[in-house]
Amino acid sequence: MLPVLEPFVSFLTDFGLADPSVAACKGVILRINCEARLVDISHAIARHSVAHGAAVLWAALPYLPAGVHLAVVDPGVGTERRAIALRTGRGDHLVGPDNGLLIPAAERLGGIVAAHLLENRAYRLATVSRTFHARDIFAPAAAHLSRGVALDAFGPGLDLDTLVRLDTPVPEPVPGRLDASVVFVDTWGNVQLLAEPADLEAAIGRVSSGDELRVEAADGSPLDGVDGIDLRWRLTYGEAEPGEPLICLDSYGRLALAVNLQSAAEKYGLGPERRLRIRRR
Amino acid sequence: MLPVLEPFVSFLTDFGLADPSVAACKGVILRINCEARLVDISHAIARHSVAHGAAVLWAALPYLPAGVHLAVVDPGVGTERRAIALRTGRGDHLVGPDNGLLIPAAERLGGIVAAHLLENRAYRLATVSRTFHARDIFAPAAAHLSRGVALDAFGPGLDLDTLVRLDTPVPEPVPGRLDASVVFVDTWGNVQLLAEPADLEAAIGRVSSGDELRVEAADGSPLDGVDGIDLRWRLTYGEAEPGEPLICLDSYGRLALAVNLQSAAEKYGLGPERRLRIRRR
Amino acid sequence: MLPVLEPFVSFLTDFGLADPSVAACKGVILRINCEARLVDISHAIARHSVAHGAAVLWAALPYLPAGVHLAVVDPGVGTERRAIALRTGRGDHLVGPDNGLLIPAAERLGGIVAAHLLENRAYRLATVSRTFHARDIFAPAAAHLSRGVALDAFGPGLDLDTLVRLDTPVPEPVPGRLDASVVFVDTWGNVQLLAEPADLEAAIGRVSSGDELRVEAADGSPLDGVDGIDLRWRLTYGEAEPGEPLICLDSYGRLALAVNLQSAAEKYGLGPERRLRIRRR
Repeated sequence: MLPVLEPFVSFLTDFGLADPSVAACKGVILRINCEARLVDISHAIARHSVAHGAAVLWAALPYLPAGVHLAVVDPGVGTERRAIALRTGRGDHLVGPDNGLLIPAAERLGGIVAAHLLENRAYRLATVSRTFHARDIFAPAAAHLSRGVALDAFGPGLDLDTLVRLDTPVPEPVPGRLDASVVFVDTWGNVQLLAEPADLEAAIGRVSSGDELRVEAADGSPLDGVDGIDLRWRLTYGEAEPGEPLICLDSYGRLALAVNLQSAAEKYGLGPERRLRIRRR
Repeated sequence: MLPVLEPFVSFLTDFGLADPSVAACKGVILRINCEARLVDISHAIARHSVAHGAAVLWAALPYLPAGVHLAVVDPGVGTERRAIALRTGRGDHLVGPDNGLLIPAAERLGGIVAAHLLENRAYRLATVSRTFHARDIFAPAAAHLSRGVALDAFGPGLDLDTLVRLDTPVPEPVPGRLDASVVFVDTWGNVQLLAEPADLEAAIGRVSSGDELRVEAADGSPLDGVDGIDLRWRLTYGEAEPGEPLICLDSYGRLALAVNLQSAAEKYGLGPERRLRIRRR
Repeated sequence: MLPVLEPFVSFLTDFGLADPSVAACKGVILRINCEARLVDISHAIARHSVAHGAAVLWAALPYLPAGVHLAVVDPGVGTERRAIALRTGRGDHLVGPDNGLLIPAAERLGGIVAAHLLENRAYRLATVSRTFHARDIFAPAAAHLSRGVALDAFGPGLDLDTLVRLDTPVPEPVPGRLDASVVFVDTWGNVQLLAEPADLEAAIGRVSSGDELRVEAADGSPLDGVDGIDLRWRLTYGEAEPGEPLICLDSYGRLALAVNLQSAAEKYGLGPERRLRIRRR
């Protein structure tokens, strides 16, 4: 593991950039820790989509230096949902709402080793609004963590079993088929599944480039007008003809359904939380 | 007030990010002051909307460290409009066109204590284009200010009364009703009014959560098909049912008209410069 | 020339910001060189448009400090296209795919003085995916260059004549007319031509503000319904009436076709690679 040489603070939200929101949060951080080095992950998460935010964090954080990671997709702001910070085995701190957003990423960073409530008023802004906890609670917490304030100074420790988790269905390999859920559609329209090559192998054995597969909706419903998609396993998008569908291992280690040079998500009407079934033809 | 520990240069434009414009300005700053720490406020201001830019600056700057704030929304580039820099009571410098963009924010940072023309060719690029003063005049000025060049070295001082100001109508509370103008629509479609709780109290007395209010257009015209909006005062968006309209205090201290989990701006056809009338039902 | 006082790493892609891709690359850079100072040029390049990316780099890089410039618009990822780094006369390093993206900018930075393949596995991530060379090959190379690793450590030198170049047609001035190609449409819809004032002067002599010109498609096809555009040479957009077309020298030193306060690209259906003919009326 890399030592934390610099106080990196990464930042992800669904706020967009036409608002003052992101800048206000950055300002809060820099006023508390003028040495903080901010790294934007994304502020273009789909509005209120905790699953989208969690998928982007999951993909990006293993490539970032250990540090503080502030993530806010928070449809429950102002309600009873808890404000938390997690420490990982790698030495990161993740700060945000207790709604599942932080968990998948934290589990890839050496696992969650501690979780604390953000309750201590000394580490909040003096006035906390009802509608903007990113600025008033989460950003100050991230900034103080980046200065070295200890996690347990923020509030009581939490039983890790009580943390809210996303309910994206896990992959289900059975002999002859794999059921797996869409977890993320990237900018290119490639459809990432919550499943790894080992899941596919458990279901239908080892696949090689060119193997003929079929994808259907797990519930038997049509995929934007077609009963199912006949396609092949490929090593990369470009192995397929332009416009040809394929399944491959994507660059984050998961299975992806794609159409070479087109958007698979648009072509087949696929979005987050759709569940697909993969088998051989 | 915080001392300026680091040469922060914040940056706001309506240039978008598909252009080389923002990067060219950043490069100009970094070539003049390689220690400058750039903080983007937004480059997604509505094209040519000085009012939108002013509202975002107004909201964001109080949360940023004191420093230099470069803001360019400049439909008058190449005309007679003046290029200026302001110093605030908090110790900030604001740099941009003299079209009202900088004033509301500067007045929140301890007030405007000095204003100077940007005339000195020593602090411009060697060649000044007719169409890109952000790069050729404003960015160099911001960079030199961040290095500690004195404001009065840039050009003659200006009478503060001659600064161009936005003409957004002020709130008018009279017994029984408050007239106030839309100043900003945020990403979520919440409609911020140029009015604070004290204005509403002056008109209709103190409001509490659940109080029944009515909003109409101040000029009696319909609001996208409805005569007026019956709604309640709320402490936060989530106190209303999904789809229910409300008025609340927003996280920047102004009155906001919102619809829980929907866009009030879309639902009622509200945009900047619309004037609304609020009364009790 | 400026010395490289700081390890600036500029970054341009067509990845957008809704993805983890840009953040993953930044993380890779910062884990290799925690002192790197990242400057985003744009991540909103039109998908797969090498020409758009090249035009933005060409415009922006001369204003940036000398440093490392990472640029990835890479429709050929995973194919035989080469991964390269260039050194310029100004002391910059440009890193990206060998598809023409880097060349126009490099030639403005003192010319290309060396080009090397990125082959050395010591300067790649341990695992190189088939689909994400920006993260696995280009970002690590940029980071190592920013730490001072010598260019020739990355792989064998390349004959500069073998570098892939864009085939945007050059300007052709003949007596009485200039043929020139659209190279870039900016956010405002202004249409930049690959031609400089000297090209126009060679064709039709020196132009002054108000001179009457005509623009047609070089192949005689209509421009979105009109045979040709009657317009004037102007010093700046605002010299024309609102809605009036004009040609001027843009802020990057090239000829631009514009419509004051409107989008010339939309009005006349102009996009990259369209070829225009300019003459006097």
